[in-house]
Amino acid sequence: MNMNGIIAKKRDGYKLTEEEIRFFVNGYTRGDIPDYQASALLMAIYIRGLDEEEIFVLTDAMRYSGEVNDLSDIPGIKVDKHSTGGVGDKTSLIIAPIAASYGVPIAKMSGRGLGFTGGTVDKMESIPGFRTSLSQEDFMNQVKDTGIAIIGQTSEVAPADKKLYALRDVTATVGNVGLITSSIMSKKLASGSDAILLDVKCGDGSFMKTEEAASELAALMVKVGTMAGKRMAAIISDMGSPLGYAVGNSLEIIEVMETLKGYGPKDLVEIAMVLAGGMIYLGGKADSFEEGKKMAEVAIENGQALEKFREFVKAQGGNPDIVDDYTLLPEATFSVPVEADRDGYVANLFAEKTGLASQQAGAGRATKEEEIDMAAGIYLGKKPGDEVRRGDYLAMVYGNNIAKVKAAAASLKEAFVISDEMPEKQPLIKKTIGL
Amino acid sequence: MNMNGIIAKKRDGYKLTEEEIRFFVNGYTRGDIPDYQASALLMAIYIRGLDEEEIFVLTDAMRYSGEVNDLSDIPGIKVDKHSTGGVGDKTSLIIAPIAASYGVPIAKMSGRGLGFTGGTVDKMESIPGFRTSLSQEDFMNQVKDTGIAIIGQTSEVAPADKKLYALRDVTATVGNVGLITSSIMSKKLASGSDAILLDVKCGDGSFMKTEEAASELAALMVKVGTMAGKRMAAIISDMGSPLGYAVGNSLEIIEVMETLKGYGPKDLVEIAMVLAGGMIYLGGKADSFEEGKKMAEVAIENGQALEKFREFVKAQGGNPDIVDDYTLLPEATFSVPVEADRDGYVANLFAEKTGLASQQAGAGRATKEEEIDMAAGIYLGKKPGDEVRRGDYLAMVYGNNIAKVKAAAASLKEAFVISDEMPEKQPLIKKTIGL
Repeated sequence: MNMNGIIAKKRDGYKLTEEEIRFFVNGYTRGDIPDYQASALLMAIYIRGLDEEEIFVLTDAMRYSGEVNDLSDIPGIKVDKHSTGGVGDKTSLIIAPIAASYGVPIAKMSGRGLGFTGGTVDKMESIPGFRTSLSQEDFMNQVKDTGIAIIGQTSEVAPADKKLYALRDVTATVGNVGLITSSIMSKKLASGSDAILLDVKCGDGSFMKTEEAASELAALMVKVGTMAGKRMAAIISDMGSPLGYAVGNSLEIIEVMETLKGYGPKDLVEIAMVLAGGMIYLGGKADSFEEGKKMAEVAIENGQALEKFREFVKAQGGNPDIVDDYTLLPEATFSVPVEADRDGYVANLFAEKTGLASQQAGAGRATKEEEIDMAAGIYLGKKPGDEVRRGDYLAMVYGNNIAKVKAAAASLKEAFVISDEMPEKQPLIKKTIGL
Repeated sequence: MNMNGIIAKKRDGYKLTEEEIRFFVNGYTRGDIPDYQASALLMAIYIRGLDEEEIFVLTDAMRYSGEVNDLSDIPGIKVDKHSTGGVGDKTSLIIAPIAASYGVPIAKMSGRGLGFTGGTVDKMESIPGFRTSLSQEDFMNQVKDTGIAIIGQTSEVAPADKKLYALRDVTATVGNVGLITSSIMSKKLASGSDAILLDVKCGDGSFMKTEEAASELAALMVKVGTMAGKRMAAIISDMGSPLGYAVGNSLEIIEVMETLKGYGPKDLVEIAMVLAGGMIYLGGKADSFEEGKKMAEVAIENGQALEKFREFVKAQGGNPDIVDDYTLLPEATFSVPVEADRDGYVANLFAEKTGLASQQAGAGRATKEEEIDMAAGIYLGKKPGDEVRRGDYLAMVYGNNIAKVKAAAASLKEAFVISDEMPEKQPLIKKTIGL
């Protein structure tokens, strides 16, 4: 078997065998196959495509390229959740405590923010004392004791994906549905949960711009997960505008707690109830998705989810008093308002531009090496559909570097579209699969 | 301008601009663009294709990536010739002296053998004392004085092609007509002649297996050369079987001299007369191709071509006495015959297998570093269409390493197909363009 022959086969549109795919993934991970051959194959795959069997084998080969978590010591159906990334998307930190409060074991690995999208790990790190890295033993014990642990993904999980993703990023081979599926699912499958709930975003602030593309990706991921023996479900949700009002690490943690207290923004609550209901259902603690959703609402009303959140923060070394005193979280020195310069309605608020403005304020990294300003970010005053008058406050931009905050405020203004007519309301949840 | 964007554009099937193509070629040649991005773009080009304008610009950018020969000091229309490579193809060394004997200036750069195909430079080096490397000054002076000089291609000519070809070779991106065109034509254009005659091979022993593919390549190269302001012509010729009877360096030099003396094999003479006629015509020394062909025949009959060959060998430091005494050329210590094991007709003699057997005997290199046995090779006794009887000698294999010669003889036997019926005769020259 030689790499040139494998490249030529896919180049000409033929299906690769299991042996060929494993030869490539294992050889590339070990460093036996050079980048330039891998990128040629990736481009051939991008253009010619992969069928479901090829995608499953590719995912499986990547899954087993490194450490595979064994969660079998933890009783119950462990449920994982994955979002394809968004702006202001803090749902994981809301729904995980809800599901855990019903005994669904959560043993989750999350990612950091990349580009204009935020990451759960960065958000958790804004909590004083919170540890996002635990030994395998501590991680397992915490799930057994409190029912929930969320840590950062270690580099030992799916190293093939790490290496391939870095290459795809610089060779224009990111946006292929088969490659995206294998990238996401290899990590999720290696994480070891029994069931996986996917939130595939579509629209401006997401990788999949159209609902059709997002649906295709969701269906494919559900298929691959099912082939791997997992319970799978997915929703396709809109990421045209940011989720909730808060964008930025400590600001989002506050919004998580507000939501757990029953004061969450309408859009965030809507999607959180669906996802939490899905997790409860997949975890076998409700007989139907509808029942799970009702249970999620109850967990907010009776405070059990907030209590679980407090327990989770404490278990992982964070200060649980943040729940009652938000000033214990990092606070920004500077704030600059963004004001409307005309009367009308907020017709649109571009998620990507909002995310980039938040990053500019200091909440995200442009390069891997950059330090995050945990207090930086955006708190929105208006969202699409809201009426505004000239001079009204549209948003407040926070941060500890005044130059960055001012620049971010100027950028954020460009994210708002104000027009005379009230925009048509778009459904937040476009579709569900398996719920 | 960034490389990722350029890759994505071609990936999606769009036409690249002149600026984008030059950015890629110059950046890659300088080493600013890494191999893995270049190979992704090459694969996208392979699958999506390039139009004539893109191919012209790519060729032009590669042509100017290094030294460009200026032959304007030499009066007359300088004519170059290029063959896409074959087995037993020694025509350059026959037709160049013929054309030069009529005052067509020949200032040619040739290549070395690669894989199973031979190279003019290797063949010339079998002549004792012959120098295939000359200073630019000596090269120019020799063309001015004797009307002909042939040297090896220097690494300063089209370095972009050298680097890109090495990458294509290991990423399954060799066989694209646009990339092949730019590779060949960038070097030919950088060599500085005013007119270029192409011999595009088709069939077993050539890169283009079908006449259609060869015709497409020929037409495209003629087009690109014309766009660059050159006089262009091409022939498409069959390389199903070796040309002539001799394969291997000193053996081929002998066959060159035999042909110049009027004793050449029928097929070799046929193609040599067409190509020499084409060169005389392109060089402006004949009013038509037909007239050029007649002149070529006359140059053999009256000995002026042989005289020019003698002059050429002497000018370039070689021993001109080889013309009268073939034993001055390297001679092999060993010879092993290949015999027919049945009665019948030679139905086929695969060119590629013959070339590989000759390489195996020591006449070619499997890797760049290998030394060539100048005396090694094959002298055919039978060619397709010939009748044979069991025990007849089909070929003699020569070389200085008996083990290699024996192995080559065994391989060569596999190149012969003997059957009961006489094969249909195939035309050697399939098509001409511009003649």
